[in-house]
Amino acid sequence: MDIKEELKKFQDKVNPELKVFFDKNIKDSKENNFITTEALKQVKKITLSGGKRLRPALMYWSYLGVGGQNRKEIIKTSISIELIHMFLLIHDDIIDNDSKRHGVETIHSRYNKIGKIIAKEKRDSVHFGNSMGIVVGDIVCALGNQVLFKSKFNAELVIKALDQLQSIIARVAVGEAQDVFIEHKRMASEKEVLDMYKNKTAKYTIEGPLHLGAILGGASDKLLNKISEFAVPVGIAFQIQDDILGIFGNEKKIGKPVGSDIREGKQTILVVRALKNASKKQKEVLNRLLGKKDISEVEIEEFRKIIRETEALDYSNILAQKLIKEGKEALHNIGFNKESEKTLLALADYMTQREI
Amino acid sequence: MDIKEELKKFQDKVNPELKVFFDKNIKDSKENNFITTEALKQVKKITLSGGKRLRPALMYWSYLGVGGQNRKEIIKTSISIELIHMFLLIHDDIIDNDSKRHGVETIHSRYNKIGKIIAKEKRDSVHFGNSMGIVVGDIVCALGNQVLFKSKFNAELVIKALDQLQSIIARVAVGEAQDVFIEHKRMASEKEVLDMYKNKTAKYTIEGPLHLGAILGGASDKLLNKISEFAVPVGIAFQIQDDILGIFGNEKKIGKPVGSDIREGKQTILVVRALKNASKKQKEVLNRLLGKKDISEVEIEEFRKIIRETEALDYSNILAQKLIKEGKEALHNIGFNKESEKTLLALADYMTQREI
Repeated sequence: MDIKEELKKFQDKVNPELKVFFDKNIKDSKENNFITTEALKQVKKITLSGGKRLRPALMYWSYLGVGGQNRKEIIKTSISIELIHMFLLIHDDIIDNDSKRHGVETIHSRYNKIGKIIAKEKRDSVHFGNSMGIVVGDIVCALGNQVLFKSKFNAELVIKALDQLQSIIARVAVGEAQDVFIEHKRMASEKEVLDMYKNKTAKYTIEGPLHLGAILGGASDKLLNKISEFAVPVGIAFQIQDDILGIFGNEKKIGKPVGSDIREGKQTILVVRALKNASKKQKEVLNRLLGKKDISEVEIEEFRKIIRETEALDYSNILAQKLIKEGKEALHNIGFNKESEKTLLALADYMTQREI
Repeated sequence: MDIKEELKKFQDKVNPELKVFFDKNIKDSKENNFITTEALKQVKKITLSGGKRLRPALMYWSYLGVGGQNRKEIIKTSISIELIHMFLLIHDDIIDNDSKRHGVETIHSRYNKIGKIIAKEKRDSVHFGNSMGIVVGDIVCALGNQVLFKSKFNAELVIKALDQLQSIIARVAVGEAQDVFIEHKRMASEKEVLDMYKNKTAKYTIEGPLHLGAILGGASDKLLNKISEFAVPVGIAFQIQDDILGIFGNEKKIGKPVGSDIREGKQTILVVRALKNASKKQKEVLNRLLGKKDISEVEIEEFRKIIRETEALDYSNILAQKLIKEGKEALHNIGFNKESEKTLLALADYMTQREI
């Protein structure tokens, strides 16, 4: 199975729904207030300029996997999780000071520029941009929730799904808080990092969407637990793999400059493990290079060497492989229909494949 | 009817529910992650240190007014709108750079201090505080939504109420965006200001909670429209009255230093109207004093004099009285039961009473 092809087919179904959604809300907002119109246009542009639609796809496949029949409605409803994702990204971009998303200006960054133009006198346009980013994120959150209410699924199931969606939001926000803490302290234990991966990636990106789809397809709580046994290990493995690629991958494959994780001083599992095993001298080098904005190619290679020598790379690889194996075994126990099981198995491989 | 007494009675019923809610979530979070525990404790402290519970009270009286019978359940459910209010205040406090709320440290301000302590090296702890404020607000939003799902009302009604709640959040966020724009530009038309009042105060503080209660009590869409005819004018009048007190009221009554609206450079209806009618000289004075951090008593008096001379005070008073009259007349047409009608009438008077 060519999973990239499958994802592409799904994107072709879900992207028009996203477009319809934004166009309707942009139109409605015009009758109301131009500020929102402008903001929603920018959110639409960011959303449609990129993204794999991984979360809606998982929701879709899980729904079909437990026997759901209404393909049209689940595709329409699956944009809710993509909108929630956009809301979180809008807030995340403020937190991370990122000015681009999918190559398009982020909300806070755009309003920072607008702020410079509209102010009569000298005002703090960074704060203006951030304020607008907070508020626009909140609007997109409300709209994402609303998509779920307005779906035509049975009211009891929708409430159960909504309850789940709020847990997902609360959980990823906890993960984000952990990340903010770790990033600020520049220090973390392996347990803290893995816990953050569980909240920020595994539960949010994999388990959450699978649960949403399964709930709308009528799955029992017991089935949801089985899904978690697949989703959580695969999600953590995905994040570990991402960390490895972030330091050892090539620019073309990972879509960001080589060494940017080092430049940002990210406390990944690799770094935490390396610091634990490092000699005093190695530790000094790691700490000197972590967060160094103008790190050179030679220094990146020096950093990689220590990650290898401290066996942090081997350790992370082994851990990821163990988790993938664990997840894949659990997948067979869920009892998804054959098509969804095949797709999710291919997806688990795709997400955690080693490209170095 | 002593409306303050009625509000107090309601507070005594709803505050224990808030306490139970926070204690449960603080306990649950302990099993999960200490970061959230700490944050939720602070949110609890802020929430229980003040606030009139006006929004839950409106939800409660509206529910009873349309014939709802389950008093216990509506009180439990009404904390959802108070939690949503807290979420918005947490984000609002970041936007307004406010370090205290109900005399307690705001979330971003608290984490700003924590950030200074925990960072290994010199880091941007203001940004850390704001980041945590964004994230903690998002968590409280999700929890507030969840209270509504978990209520025991009929699922169809809960979905309708939730849909309404998301519209309320989206609407107040639009109002907040308008406010951020106006505050940043330091310039607005009367129409822009009144539109912002409609979104930020009337629809959010009055109409929204009344609609939520009425929906859960089984009200028709037609009835909701009638409620709006009461809620929107009274809400705008309340805000205008608040503006008047903000400039002419005394410190004890309004709970903030005299002239703080002038010091913050707020574009209230009074200011916008005065600027419109002012002579060139008066306009110069207004613009010079607006936003002046170290404004003196004499200057405040000078400012007030111009507000009077340009007839901005009379204009605003007349507008507020007209809106209150309009709202009160509409109240009789709703057909609430006698007790709720009496309470809401007293509340409309209380909220818009002239205390200068």
